[in-house]
Amino acid sequence: MAGGPRVGAVSARAGIVVTGTEVLTGRVADRNGPWLAEQLRLLGVDVGHVVVVGDRPEDLRGALTFLAGTGVDLVITTGGLGPTADDLTAQLVGEVQGRPSAVDPELERRIAAIVERLAARRGWRTDPVATAAGVRKQALVPEGATVLEPVGTAPGLVVPPAAGRGGPTVLVLPGPPAELQGMWPAALAEPSLRTALAGAEELRQETVRLWGTLEAQLAATLREHEAELGALEITTCLRDGELEIVTRFPPSAQPAYDRLGAVLAAEYADTLFSTGPSLDDLVARGFADRGWTVATGESCTGGLLAARLTERAGSSAWVLGGVTAYANSAKQQLLGVPPAMLAEHGAVSPEVAGALADGARARFGADVGVGITGVAGPGGGTADKPVGTVHVCVSTPAGRVARALRLPGSRAAVRERSVTMAMHLLRGALLGGPSA
Amino acid sequence: MAGGPRVGAVSARAGIVVTGTEVLTGRVADRNGPWLAEQLRLLGVDVGHVVVVGDRPEDLRGALTFLAGTGVDLVITTGGLGPTADDLTAQLVGEVQGRPSAVDPELERRIAAIVERLAARRGWRTDPVATAAGVRKQALVPEGATVLEPVGTAPGLVVPPAAGRGGPTVLVLPGPPAELQGMWPAALAEPSLRTALAGAEELRQETVRLWGTLEAQLAATLREHEAELGALEITTCLRDGELEIVTRFPPSAQPAYDRLGAVLAAEYADTLFSTGPSLDDLVARGFADRGWTVATGESCTGGLLAARLTERAGSSAWVLGGVTAYANSAKQQLLGVPPAMLAEHGAVSPEVAGALADGARARFGADVGVGITGVAGPGGGTADKPVGTVHVCVSTPAGRVARALRLPGSRAAVRERSVTMAMHLLRGALLGGPSA
Repeated sequence: MAGGPRVGAVSARAGIVVTGTEVLTGRVADRNGPWLAEQLRLLGVDVGHVVVVGDRPEDLRGALTFLAGTGVDLVITTGGLGPTADDLTAQLVGEVQGRPSAVDPELERRIAAIVERLAARRGWRTDPVATAAGVRKQALVPEGATVLEPVGTAPGLVVPPAAGRGGPTVLVLPGPPAELQGMWPAALAEPSLRTALAGAEELRQETVRLWGTLEAQLAATLREHEAELGALEITTCLRDGELEIVTRFPPSAQPAYDRLGAVLAAEYADTLFSTGPSLDDLVARGFADRGWTVATGESCTGGLLAARLTERAGSSAWVLGGVTAYANSAKQQLLGVPPAMLAEHGAVSPEVAGALADGARARFGADVGVGITGVAGPGGGTADKPVGTVHVCVSTPAGRVARALRLPGSRAAVRERSVTMAMHLLRGALLGGPSA
Repeated sequence: MAGGPRVGAVSARAGIVVTGTEVLTGRVADRNGPWLAEQLRLLGVDVGHVVVVGDRPEDLRGALTFLAGTGVDLVITTGGLGPTADDLTAQLVGEVQGRPSAVDPELERRIAAIVERLAARRGWRTDPVATAAGVRKQALVPEGATVLEPVGTAPGLVVPPAAGRGGPTVLVLPGPPAELQGMWPAALAEPSLRTALAGAEELRQETVRLWGTLEAQLAATLREHEAELGALEITTCLRDGELEIVTRFPPSAQPAYDRLGAVLAAEYADTLFSTGPSLDDLVARGFADRGWTVATGESCTGGLLAARLTERAGSSAWVLGGVTAYANSAKQQLLGVPPAMLAEHGAVSPEVAGALADGARARFGADVGVGITGVAGPGGGTADKPVGTVHVCVSTPAGRVARALRLPGSRAAVRERSVTMAMHLLRGALLGGPSA
């Protein structure tokens, strides 16, 4: 991963604190940090750090102090706004900003009504005393802070530093991603927040994707052209064969980016497969352009490919469905894979991958069929077909393409990588371009 | 989320820095922070902060300084060990620890051999000059640091502070999770690391799971019994209806935990469904205990339920497979859902959910069938069946259970929550217990 000097024109900076022991331990994957970082980028606000803490006040206090010390204009906290006694974020932020907290009675009434409706809708019995204590806690507001109306039960807060104190404004948001995202427009509309971000300038982002190029190779190219590209912040990430080059820059550096784009298009003509759209975008576009439908015949991937193809709204226009034929009996019964083929070549073979693809096409009446069969592990491997052996086949009106793979990693990694490889094979079959 | 005072007996603490712009922006979900936090807990080492930074040296330096200032015994960094010129982690950590870096020629030779083998295996053409520059960079070692042999191409490092300097030891690990996890045993075996963690004491962790209890209710219970539970660090997380109570404590607090367990078992007898095992553990155990097999008939969930059931090794013993019948024609053709039923009730109906479940049972010859049909959104909703309307049915030799759901959230959230609800319905059908 590479980069030029800090992009000079961005002069609004933010830090993010994600709170919650369930996030620290990974029980729950944090979606708020990345979502906020992207929203901030769209506003031209740069994020340097995301700090994840558990539920201890001293850890949150430390994180807030650290971020304030990096000179950011804004700190956003997520989580810790629940009804339990140790959901302390609001009070703690108030304290750090020099603003003592008190219960807002009108807000308390509004939250109580929301909680009552919620419990009634789910048919839950509640303890009025316990519930009232929780609601009261959620209605604690630092003096002089602005309240953002609850999207769930918890209100958000915009908490500037008290008069005479320096440091960033703190925006306090709920933990559940849907609540946080629902509250974001109201937060942006707040004058005190707009003031904190007054220095922000547009930050553009462009992405180029290569298939089959080593990171070291690209690093050499970037070093060669360093003089012309200096103002650009370029980051690269190689993952499952796809080398993604993401560049951020202010509008004034557009000519430099255009030069980078031209260099990449010239030097990597044989591996460049996208100047923006993701793999999933390209596959969806490919099906739409060709007017083809697709069905899957999966074994080791268990339904993950069908799930990926149906992720986006509107996919019903080209995805008919799929079969997860986990047991060999299912491969025969549902997709017509001949017993003799299974006996002769084994379930994990290019022959069976082809039969799964053709079987899915036939059974669903689809134009395109995708077959995947392999050894996901950790058990099931042999000397001939060790864990990670996977066969993928894409069968279309224009012909068949297939790949024999040896994928590294855990059971989950083999399943995930098999799906990615199948998507690249589909991309190649639909649109042409590199998919070796 | 609640907690008692800091558990006094844990006297080894660590901080984690995750580096990489792709993680900061969420392009890649961080798995290293949570994995390391759990490994550390197993060793009795407490983690207060995980700091995520991009690829800028000053941001990494700031994070290291902050964590050192919190008084931790160990800081672990992940990522930034690649071949490109701005993969600076190793040098920067050396600098912070007062140890200048130099190339280790033997290490350089070993890395060069690894890179050559890797390129040959994938059939990639490489530029020798570019490759050599990258390898040289990866062989830079801070003076006096211990090298951990590469699992991929990058070595890890154990970097204690230089003589006369205070502060934590820094363990530098690669970014790709498989490489980091593969290197962990070697890191733990390093004497300088063991010294840094000498104060660690066993930290136990227990989990209780409730289905259908509000967090505020539990908070009241915990407040009531505060006096007896004070030494326990209790965190709660309500997600998709499941209230998870995780408690960490030193062995000396086992009696206090036993009291908590007894309180929960008594007061939440009707909603407690697990004193440890996860939902997926329980479903797998249920199938094994009953000796039943299962097949799925999914629509809006696109294969996600079949994929979830096949996540664990050994699931082939009870999962025969499933059909993603996305198009109505597929529901008819592959699972025998009667056209008249689709015409009369619509694809999103309890009748069709039942027909999908029964159809899957029949076609796969399974004991259990699960049918899911719904409106994932954002389009496709009507006044009668708005987005989030989902019908789930589980059909077993013992009878049928079904649920009509109204799930909140985005397309992805509706799909994910439908799968979770189907898993709880399966749990109830297999093992009894709360699954309202």
